[in-house]
Amino acid sequence: MRDAYIDQLDAIFEDLAGIARRVQVAVGQATTALMTGDSTIAEKVISDDAAIDRAREQVEENAFSLLSLQQPVARDLRTVVAALRMVAELERMGDLSVHVAKVARLRVPDVAVPEEARPTMTRMAEVAEDMVSRVCDVIAGRDVEAAIALGRDDEEMDQLRRTSFSELLSDDWSHGVEAAVDIALLGRYYERIADHAVSIANRVIFVVTGHNPVPAA
Amino acid sequence: MRDAYIDQLDAIFEDLAGIARRVQVAVGQATTALMTGDSTIAEKVISDDAAIDRAREQVEENAFSLLSLQQPVARDLRTVVAALRMVAELERMGDLSVHVAKVARLRVPDVAVPEEARPTMTRMAEVAEDMVSRVCDVIAGRDVEAAIALGRDDEEMDQLRRTSFSELLSDDWSHGVEAAVDIALLGRYYERIADHAVSIANRVIFVVTGHNPVPAA
Repeated sequence: MRDAYIDQLDAIFEDLAGIARRVQVAVGQATTALMTGDSTIAEKVISDDAAIDRAREQVEENAFSLLSLQQPVARDLRTVVAALRMVAELERMGDLSVHVAKVARLRVPDVAVPEEARPTMTRMAEVAEDMVSRVCDVIAGRDVEAAIALGRDDEEMDQLRRTSFSELLSDDWSHGVEAAVDIALLGRYYERIADHAVSIANRVIFVVTGHNPVPAA
Repeated sequence: MRDAYIDQLDAIFEDLAGIARRVQVAVGQATTALMTGDSTIAEKVISDDAAIDRAREQVEENAFSLLSLQQPVARDLRTVVAALRMVAELERMGDLSVHVAKVARLRVPDVAVPEEARPTMTRMAEVAEDMVSRVCDVIAGRDVEAAIALGRDDEEMDQLRRTSFSELLSDDWSHGVEAAVDIALLGRYYERIADHAVSIANRVIFVVTGHNPVPAA
């Protein structure tokens, strides 16, 4: 009984890591679509999101089945509930990638991000994708050290967000309101992807150590 | 045993309805701060959010306790898991109200929303607050009819979002990039509050009927 439970729980975490890898692909492709104005890739991100939604449903069913049949308590129960939360956050990160892809698609054949805003936006996208990549490893290895390190990266995202706002609010901004609004919303989407990555990493810390991480000073 | 379980489950739903009412106050006050440029009210929304966070933790502890001690299965299990998801969404709606309040605070003593954008933004805020108000009743009464009606209101929010974008992207827009960015982000925050209200209503439909609602055509 106990072994079956551990196998089922391990399987759920493997599935979560698999979904995280799908999300990583979605973030990367959405960024490519955004930076190149490629509508085919944008459409792919949008249509592939259904597979993430289905994978989420499967994890939920498996978690319910585990709760019903094994009736875990204490730490085991918290682990399963944490898995349910993590899968909801991963699905949301997929949705945010779709939002990025839709902004890209809306501006085809143009590119939504003007030349002078590209370095900051490119770096935001890199930080977001890197955080998702590391979340895959954090989940797969239930790696507390990597989870703690992930929280620190979020500070770079906050700084990039501030830089992005100063660029589009500067007197030198010559690309008008539409591009500025696109960039503000795109920045919000990448920031939220990063927030969810940190939140998932914190849940892994809680699952492994039994304690919530201490917020950064 | 069974009666204790039902009492505990009812208590969780009462607590959820109580948090929803706090969120409704937060949305209303954030809107007042936004439309009047009142920093005192904005600060109140920001500091009151800690009470929503604490109430969320209490609901989570009660739900864990119920899962551990009563070990519900099937529909009862789904109800408790749904409650855990609803409380996470309610907390997020509180966070979004804080985001609105922070935009308001950033522009004091000015008002972030220029005159010509006020009718649409005011209506967005009204729709969001009304949806939260109705979510309180949906949760408290586990009211499926009211939950279904809530999903329809979300269409008005989508329409308002489109109207808002056409206002700030029109050639007549004379308020510059900063106000446009504020309005795009504020619209996003109200839209997300509405999305969460619909999502919570859908969870209540699932809890009561055992089926997910059919998406609107």
